[in-house]
Amino acid sequence: MKKIAVLTSGGDAPGMNPGIRAVVRAGIYHGLEVVGVRHGYAGLLRGDFIPMTLESVGDIVQRGGTCLYTARCPEFMTPEGQQLGFEHLRQSGIEALIVFGGDGSFHGALRLHEMGIQTIGVPSTIDNDIACCDLTIGFDTAVQTVIEAIDKIRDTATSHERTYVVEVMGRSAGHIALQAGLAGGAESVLIPEVPYQLEDVIKRLERGIARGKKHSIIVIAEGAGSGVEVGQYVREHTGLDVRVTVLGHVQRGGAPTATDRVLASRLGAYAVNLCMAGESGKMAATQNGELCAVPFETVFNSVRAPEMSVYQLADILSI
Amino acid sequence: MKKIAVLTSGGDAPGMNPGIRAVVRAGIYHGLEVVGVRHGYAGLLRGDFIPMTLESVGDIVQRGGTCLYTARCPEFMTPEGQQLGFEHLRQSGIEALIVFGGDGSFHGALRLHEMGIQTIGVPSTIDNDIACCDLTIGFDTAVQTVIEAIDKIRDTATSHERTYVVEVMGRSAGHIALQAGLAGGAESVLIPEVPYQLEDVIKRLERGIARGKKHSIIVIAEGAGSGVEVGQYVREHTGLDVRVTVLGHVQRGGAPTATDRVLASRLGAYAVNLCMAGESGKMAATQNGELCAVPFETVFNSVRAPEMSVYQLADILSI
Amino acid sequence: MKKIAVLTSGGDAPGMNPGIRAVVRAGIYHGLEVVGVRHGYAGLLRGDFIPMTLESVGDIVQRGGTCLYTARCPEFMTPEGQQLGFEHLRQSGIEALIVFGGDGSFHGALRLHEMGIQTIGVPSTIDNDIACCDLTIGFDTAVQTVIEAIDKIRDTATSHERTYVVEVMGRSAGHIALQAGLAGGAESVLIPEVPYQLEDVIKRLERGIARGKKHSIIVIAEGAGSGVEVGQYVREHTGLDVRVTVLGHVQRGGAPTATDRVLASRLGAYAVNLCMAGESGKMAATQNGELCAVPFETVFNSVRAPEMSVYQLADILSI
Amino acid sequence: MKKIAVLTSGGDAPGMNPGIRAVVRAGIYHGLEVVGVRHGYAGLLRGDFIPMTLESVGDIVQRGGTCLYTARCPEFMTPEGQQLGFEHLRQSGIEALIVFGGDGSFHGALRLHEMGIQTIGVPSTIDNDIACCDLTIGFDTAVQTVIEAIDKIRDTATSHERTYVVEVMGRSAGHIALQAGLAGGAESVLIPEVPYQLEDVIKRLERGIARGKKHSIIVIAEGAGSGVEVGQYVREHTGLDVRVTVLGHVQRGGAPTATDRVLASRLGAYAVNLCMAGESGKMAATQNGELCAVPFETVFNSVRAPEMSVYQLADILSI
Repeated sequence: MKKIAVLTSGGDAPGMNPGIRAVVRAGIYHGLEVVGVRHGYAGLLRGDFIPMTLESVGDIVQRGGTCLYTARCPEFMTPEGQQLGFEHLRQSGIEALIVFGGDGSFHGALRLHEMGIQTIGVPSTIDNDIACCDLTIGFDTAVQTVIEAIDKIRDTATSHERTYVVEVMGRSAGHIALQAGLAGGAESVLIPEVPYQLEDVIKRLERGIARGKKHSIIVIAEGAGSGVEVGQYVREHTGLDVRVTVLGHVQRGGAPTATDRVLASRLGAYAVNLCMAGESGKMAATQNGELCAVPFETVFNSVRAPEMSVYQLADILSI
Repeated sequence: MKKIAVLTSGGDAPGMNPGIRAVVRAGIYHGLEVVGVRHGYAGLLRGDFIPMTLESVGDIVQRGGTCLYTARCPEFMTPEGQQLGFEHLRQSGIEALIVFGGDGSFHGALRLHEMGIQTIGVPSTIDNDIACCDLTIGFDTAVQTVIEAIDKIRDTATSHERTYVVEVMGRSAGHIALQAGLAGGAESVLIPEVPYQLEDVIKRLERGIARGKKHSIIVIAEGAGSGVEVGQYVREHTGLDVRVTVLGHVQRGGAPTATDRVLASRLGAYAVNLCMAGESGKMAATQNGELCAVPFETVFNSVRAPEMSVYQLADILSI
Repeated sequence: MKKIAVLTSGGDAPGMNPGIRAVVRAGIYHGLEVVGVRHGYAGLLRGDFIPMTLESVGDIVQRGGTCLYTARCPEFMTPEGQQLGFEHLRQSGIEALIVFGGDGSFHGALRLHEMGIQTIGVPSTIDNDIACCDLTIGFDTAVQTVIEAIDKIRDTATSHERTYVVEVMGRSAGHIALQAGLAGGAESVLIPEVPYQLEDVIKRLERGIARGKKHSIIVIAEGAGSGVEVGQYVREHTGLDVRVTVLGHVQRGGAPTATDRVLASRLGAYAVNLCMAGESGKMAATQNGELCAVPFETVFNSVRAPEMSVYQLADILSI
Repeated sequence: MKKIAVLTSGGDAPGMNPGIRAVVRAGIYHGLEVVGVRHGYAGLLRGDFIPMTLESVGDIVQRGGTCLYTARCPEFMTPEGQQLGFEHLRQSGIEALIVFGGDGSFHGALRLHEMGIQTIGVPSTIDNDIACCDLTIGFDTAVQTVIEAIDKIRDTATSHERTYVVEVMGRSAGHIALQAGLAGGAESVLIPEVPYQLEDVIKRLERGIARGKKHSIIVIAEGAGSGVEVGQYVREHTGLDVRVTVLGHVQRGGAPTATDRVLASRLGAYAVNLCMAGESGKMAATQNGELCAVPFETVFNSVRAPEMSVYQLADILSI
């Protein structure tokens, strides 16, 4: 193996930069030439390739976002698009491609693998909604960002004795809401995986008030409903002073936490090892802290369930 | 003078806690008894008074919110409410009251002054919309919170080459938007004090694109329009990938910055001095860095204009 | 079981507060009376007990340090001290004691267990130097604090093209240095568990310079030598502009990260469950993410080795 | 005027990057060609010039350090060095030079002015030790960094009921110590400008203990003595558990605060205006919030005294 490429795809996640750095440095360490594909699969279609050097990943370990840019690319969903991407890689003499992204991005990688390019995926999404791995790159930072926001909101919730509804990211998965709700001391956590009744939320609030609670925080994942509507419902059914905050895209950025940097560094370097060992069509992951490679199909056929013990714990601790 | 009281009123602002601490410690230093009124004027009406000791303000210098709580209180707008508040103070032997809050809170303080209680206001609002002072308590922290959010958003704006509209607080005043827009490197800043045309925002965006800009950030004060509507307009008229974030109540909380702690400490201690000197019906403020007392009427009859030089500078630097 | 107690012992660790909160809330949820012992074993000897209510742990989930205070207590090492502590617990009708701390604190808990008080330990130390668990409470926050410091130092290292030696905590264990070194992009990481030659550090620096590196960061655990001496050696043997920073006690404080809050919440609530199930003389821990109870003896007889794969990775990535 | 240059000199200060950005963007806005001199006066001697474009200052407004690098340069103190620098500027057709730095850097700028190059200085140093201006670039960020460290240290000081000595930067000036001491709630602040007796520090500590204080923080500027020695003295004379932290170079780095970004943006753009107006040999500054130009000689002949009212306030509030 002489030449590999790396790209970031899908939504950006904090930790992609230390991940790219790890691929480049480990690649160069092992004597490989490393190429960066810019703008994800869209750049692959355009042949937007740049040579990566030790210097091109200098001083990025601490930066959010991705220095290779990312994009959504519907064209790469088509056989023509995939063929074009394949040809660009072949023409450039690239033998293996490392893809940082989520499920959707791995489907593209699987197609390239089937066409004969070695591909390794690295799970990178703030939502933590990829199965068969302990943790995805970006999740730890996103949860940290959310609790820092909740900590700020708590200051004003306490001062005004108000109820706050905080809507966080997570269309199909409530992992961010769950961890941040527990860590942020939320009174209720609403996630898409667990059906809920707004009446129960009200009952919890009233129970808390009966116990002397003066302020409350309700965390809701965007996939579990609209924060604004929940706020409206609570306001109407309790007469409480309720405010709603939709955290939005601040959750995507920021310097990666140490946990995300270490994870990204380990997975990036390991992805290079996998390429050199001839592996392909697999996701580099940690399971119980150990590095391992999981076939994309296995990943696609598995579902990451929310940690119900954490869900129940959030319930107990918000007594 | 033997006994003074302190309350926080209106929206909470980071720095109220070090401000309360300064009132209590300076008061005790000068041999006064200090009483805390909880929940602003609402607590005044209920006689919700607590004795303040050195210990009751220990370990709060770094906390957001207010340990005395705050509330809106329409009843205190009525003569009956004011009479009741006056009587509670008289009965408790309180000679002077220090009020942390904004314009609305100072109107209440003015009435008490007219009824014969010494009152001193301390300008505290994240909006910086109080005239006759260099700076209000809470503004510096709020701007800092906003730029930290913008810095995070920039990571994803850069990675995805997107345009972001960030709506910040400021119903009638664009100070937060202006400072944060300049400090955050925004391409456009929209504030209530300066009429604007959305076409011009589009033109600026297009000029930037022509110059090679790949991403943009537009900061809008809530009083200058809806971030969601601006985003919609830009999306429709440019075809750009536009996202909107409404920062909301995270802007009210958080540990106060050093600037806010120092300002609050200075003003709190100075307010005690003013009380002891027999002053009343005035706001404690800094002007050109110097402590001074400004009659409430002067404050009410003045307007704090946005700094147009900063507005123009934001324009020049976003070339 | 009707009555349990909780104390924090040894060096404070961020996450002790959410841990205490979890013990208290889970205890009350299960119908128990919960007592807080202040100042660790020193308070146990004095009978410094306070009743814990839902309110006494309100608004602490986000705070560093420990609201129950902590202390070193040599007296509790003696049989007399232990007997006295035992009697205080018995007289107060306390059936079980939950101890947040490290190895040393667990030895005390083991003695009480042997005397007939149920005791459960919760691993809490920034050093991560307790065996038989995935992670100790406080470690994640400490590493995060260190990399935020390194990120700042990198700004000035880059601007001045200097070499920095950063000494971090860890007397007998290099875990903080290792994780923070990898996450902070350090050129060399020196830990007590791996013998090193300063000549090799110099060689690495020189190799980096030959490759075009202009600045470097060396992270050293306090147990691996003195940062000042390493700095002196490097300065003398290279002529480089070398600066040294000893991070010190900032590493102990600060709001716990989400990871530490979640871990502490899980372990605290689980410790209550263990008490109710009649368990004693054990440490509540997570292993591969799962909750489990490990006998103190097993903990004492095991050693947590540094992750050599991370050590080697730091080496590869600093090429 | 067609062509100007910009350099950063002396110790780096957070805010230099937004300052450079403002010079470049305002310059280009006004139709000028802007050149960056790398590595301060050392780069001037080597002719290390690079063209600055809108893009070369993209995405740096939020970064600590200086993208133009900085260095100390004894050679530029000599007439030969100055002549060489002058010639490099002349040969490149550079008519004016904007220098970000402190007093020492301004002396070099004054010499170039006398030789016939227009020079404007921009006060940039974390120490705030330049006279004739409200504030230097970098000071606000440095103070913020210090109080965040003190907040962390307070967590452990409170938990362990300890006394901490925190040594901060400031060789000849106590501004950082003073502001951070007041904002951080320190019990004593020791600065080079005010002689002190360690006995008095002890007396204050003892008075605090008598009043019920369990922990204390002493802030000392490096120019006022050694933190380690003060800690040793206090330990010996009180028997208290005393720890010392020397914050060191973390104080130089980090993302600039909003205040520093706004100040740097205003001064950078104003410096360009001054160049275009034919001004030279002056420092761009704000006084009472207004932009103004101060002759270097006036700056050199003035001294910035510490704010004694703040000093006394710190004293009162630590009662």
